[in-house]
Amino acid sequence: MKAGPSQEEVRQHNLGILLRHVHFDGPTSRAVLATRLGLNRSTILGLVGDLSAAGLVREELPQETGRAGRPSLVVKPESTRVHVLAVDLGVERLAAALIGLGGVFLDRRECPWPAGHPQDPARVAAILAEFAHEMLARAPAGSWCVGVGVAVRGIVRQPDGLVTLTPNMGWKDVDFAGAFADRLRLNLPVLVANEANLGALAEHRRGIGRGSQNLVYLHGETGIGAGVITDGELLHGERGYAGEIGHMTVNPYQGRPCGCGAHGCLEAEAGERALLEAAGRDGQHLGAEAVRSVVVAADHGDVTARAALHRVGDWLGIGIANLVNLLNPDLVVLGGTLRDVFLGSAAQVRSRINTNALAAVRENLRLRVSELGGDAVLIGAAELAFSEVLTRPLETLTRITEQRRARPGALSPSSPQS
Amino acid sequence: MKAGPSQEEVRQHNLGILLRHVHFDGPTSRAVLATRLGLNRSTILGLVGDLSAAGLVREELPQETGRAGRPSLVVKPESTRVHVLAVDLGVERLAAALIGLGGVFLDRRECPWPAGHPQDPARVAAILAEFAHEMLARAPAGSWCVGVGVAVRGIVRQPDGLVTLTPNMGWKDVDFAGAFADRLRLNLPVLVANEANLGALAEHRRGIGRGSQNLVYLHGETGIGAGVITDGELLHGERGYAGEIGHMTVNPYQGRPCGCGAHGCLEAEAGERALLEAAGRDGQHLGAEAVRSVVVAADHGDVTARAALHRVGDWLGIGIANLVNLLNPDLVVLGGTLRDVFLGSAAQVRSRINTNALAAVRENLRLRVSELGGDAVLIGAAELAFSEVLTRPLETLTRITEQRRARPGALSPSSPQS
Repeated sequence: MKAGPSQEEVRQHNLGILLRHVHFDGPTSRAVLATRLGLNRSTILGLVGDLSAAGLVREELPQETGRAGRPSLVVKPESTRVHVLAVDLGVERLAAALIGLGGVFLDRRECPWPAGHPQDPARVAAILAEFAHEMLARAPAGSWCVGVGVAVRGIVRQPDGLVTLTPNMGWKDVDFAGAFADRLRLNLPVLVANEANLGALAEHRRGIGRGSQNLVYLHGETGIGAGVITDGELLHGERGYAGEIGHMTVNPYQGRPCGCGAHGCLEAEAGERALLEAAGRDGQHLGAEAVRSVVVAADHGDVTARAALHRVGDWLGIGIANLVNLLNPDLVVLGGTLRDVFLGSAAQVRSRINTNALAAVRENLRLRVSELGGDAVLIGAAELAFSEVLTRPLETLTRITEQRRARPGALSPSSPQS
Repeated sequence: MKAGPSQEEVRQHNLGILLRHVHFDGPTSRAVLATRLGLNRSTILGLVGDLSAAGLVREELPQETGRAGRPSLVVKPESTRVHVLAVDLGVERLAAALIGLGGVFLDRRECPWPAGHPQDPARVAAILAEFAHEMLARAPAGSWCVGVGVAVRGIVRQPDGLVTLTPNMGWKDVDFAGAFADRLRLNLPVLVANEANLGALAEHRRGIGRGSQNLVYLHGETGIGAGVITDGELLHGERGYAGEIGHMTVNPYQGRPCGCGAHGCLEAEAGERALLEAAGRDGQHLGAEAVRSVVVAADHGDVTARAALHRVGDWLGIGIANLVNLLNPDLVVLGGTLRDVFLGSAAQVRSRINTNALAAVRENLRLRVSELGGDAVLIGAAELAFSEVLTRPLETLTRITEQRRARPGALSPSSPQS
C-alpha cells in the first residue's frame, strides 16, 4: 500500500502518458490529447513543451487533414532521433533492429542461426553487437539510443533477466544481458525477456490485440509458449516465469515424451515435432518451412497431412480451452508457427474449445492469427526497451546523459540531444 | 492511459490507504503510519482526523506495550460501529455474518442447506435476509452497515454480479443480487462473486497468503475452483470468469465424465465424487464429512482409502503443476475439502509437481492448507463488501447517508454516524 503521488510525481507520470499516447497512437493534436488524457490545455502545452525540449516529440502540420481550413499542429514522436535496439535470439535466426519512437523500423540485420548445443553466449553477443554497431553508425547524427531489449526462446528470471533455460541455445543460467552489454558498450541497461511475453506485448500494443485488456498470445517455434495480458498488463508471476503453457500436461498417461522429462505436455502433443512426425516428415527437418509445407500439403488434399493437422489441432484446442477456463481472455492470438497450424486446423481447434471450455467463458472469445507475424517478437523486444523512457521520460534521458558523461569511453555513435 | 490524479484525488487515495492499513494490519501509531505510508506526520494527522470525524477509526491507548514510558496512541478501526454483511451460499449450508472493520466477526447465523435442484432464489434470499435483519437488530445503536458481499459456488459475471451458473443451486443467469437487495431493503449495493475468488482474497489479506503477491487458492466443495492473485490483485479475466480450473482437461481420452459435459476435467478426476467412488463409498453421500472420513480411514491403514487418495492426489498434483507452469505463483493454498484431501495425499501431490512443473518455476513454490478454514469464503465476501469504503472512505459514507435520506423507507436498523 503506497501513499498517493506528489505533484512532481504526477507531472512525471503525465509526461509519460503523453509520450506513450503519441508512441502508440501516432501524431495527435494538443486538443485531442487534452480530451483523451483528461487534462486542461495549458497543462498539455507545458508537457508538450518539456518533451519537445528534450527531443522526444515535435509539433508539425499533419500530412493531410482532408478538411478545409487551417489544420491544427500535431504532436509527433521523434521517430528518427530517438530509438532503441531490439534483438531476437530465434530458433532459426539471429535478428537485430533499430526501432524508432512510434514503433518505426529504422534499420535491421539478421543471419540464419540453426539450433545446436551448446552455443557460446559470447559469440552470439558478438554477432549481435556487430549488427548493432553497424546500424548505429548509419543512424542520423544527433539521434540516440535509449534502451536495449532482447528476446530469448525459453524462461527468463525477472527482474534481473537471467536466462534460466533456452533449449535452442543450450543455455542454463546464462547472464546474456551482461555478455551483450559488454560487447555493445552503449552504457545502457540490457533488458531480456521470454519470446511469448514479448509477442503478447507487441500484439497488445501494436497488433491484433489493440483494445483487448485480456489476451493470450501463443507462440509456436519448436516449443509452445504463452504470453498473458490480464487487465492490460503482462502477467509475470513470482519470478517472471508465467506462461509456460508448453508444459501444461494434457495427456499424462498415453502422452508423448517431452524435452522437459515429463509426458503428454502440450508442446509434446501439439508442437512442431508432433505435427511433422504425424505427417510422416523426417523429424530432423524442423522449422517454420517444414510446418508450412504440411499445411500446404493438407490444403492440396494430402490425407496424411490433413490427419496430422487434425490431431495437432485437437490438442491445441484442448490447450486453448484450458487457458480460456483459467484466464477468461477475450482474445487468443496464434503466432510463430502456430499461425500456420491454426490456419490449417481452425475447425478442429474451435470444435475442441466448444467441447472443453465452459459456455459462458468462451462466449465472447475471439481466435485470431498474429497481425505482426514474424516481427511480433522483435517489436515486443523494442517495446521492452522503450519501457523506461515511456514511464519516466525526462529522468531517463537525464540518467543516460549523465552516465555517458561519467564514462566517456562508452561507445556513443551519436551525441545526445540536450 | 489515464492522466495523474488531482490533489483531491490524492487525498481520497491516502484516506483509503490509511484505512486499509488499520483494517488489515490492526492498530498502528501515527508515527508508524507515517513511515509505512511514506507521508509526513502532519498529513497523517489530517487524514486520521478526517477518518475519526467520519466514525471510521478512533485513537486510543494500546492494550499493552511491554515497554516502560508513556505509550503512543494507536489508530484503530471502529470495528463495532462500521460493519458489513457477508453471505455464503455453500453446498451444505447458508451462512451470514456481520463482520466489523478490521475483520472482526460481530455476529453470525447459518443453517444446513443440502444441494437439490432447482432452488428458488427468492426463498434463499428471504432466509438470508432474515438472518441479516436479526443480526442488524442486535447491532449496537449508532453502528452502521456499509456493504453487502455474497459468495456463490459457480461462475459470476463481472462487474454486474449476475450468477451465470451455480450447479448446487441449479441456477442459470440469476440476478441474486437483485433478489437479495429487494429482501434486505438496506439500500446498499449487493456485490456477488465466486467462492474461490473470495477465498483467495481472504487468504491473501488475512490468512496464509499474507505477504505473497502471486498465489492461487484452490477450493474444493463438490467441484474445484481457483482464485488467482497476480501482482497482489485478483485476476478476473474479461467477464470475471477466470479461475475455472475445475474444468481444465487433464485426461481427455480416458477421463471420467464431468458435469460440464466434457471428459477428464480436473474436478471429474480429483473432485469429491472421484475420491469417494475410488474409496468405495456410496456416491450419494457427498460432502466434507464424507471426504474427511476417507482421509481418516487412510490414516488408520484402510488400503482402499489410501489408494483413492493416491489416485486423487496424483491428479491434483497434475492440476497444480499446470497452474504453476502457467502462472508461476509462489504459494498454492488448498481450502474447502481440498484441505483434507491434500493432508492425506501431500506426498503424491508433491511428487507429481516435481515431475510435471519446470524446475525453475517450482523452485520457490510453497503448498499450504487454508489458514482460515471453513470461514475463508465468508471472510472473502466481507472483504468484497468492504472494498468500496476502503477505496473511497468519505465519498462512500456520504453516498450511503444521502441515499438513506432520499429513501427514508429503506430499512435502517441503526442510524449513521454524522
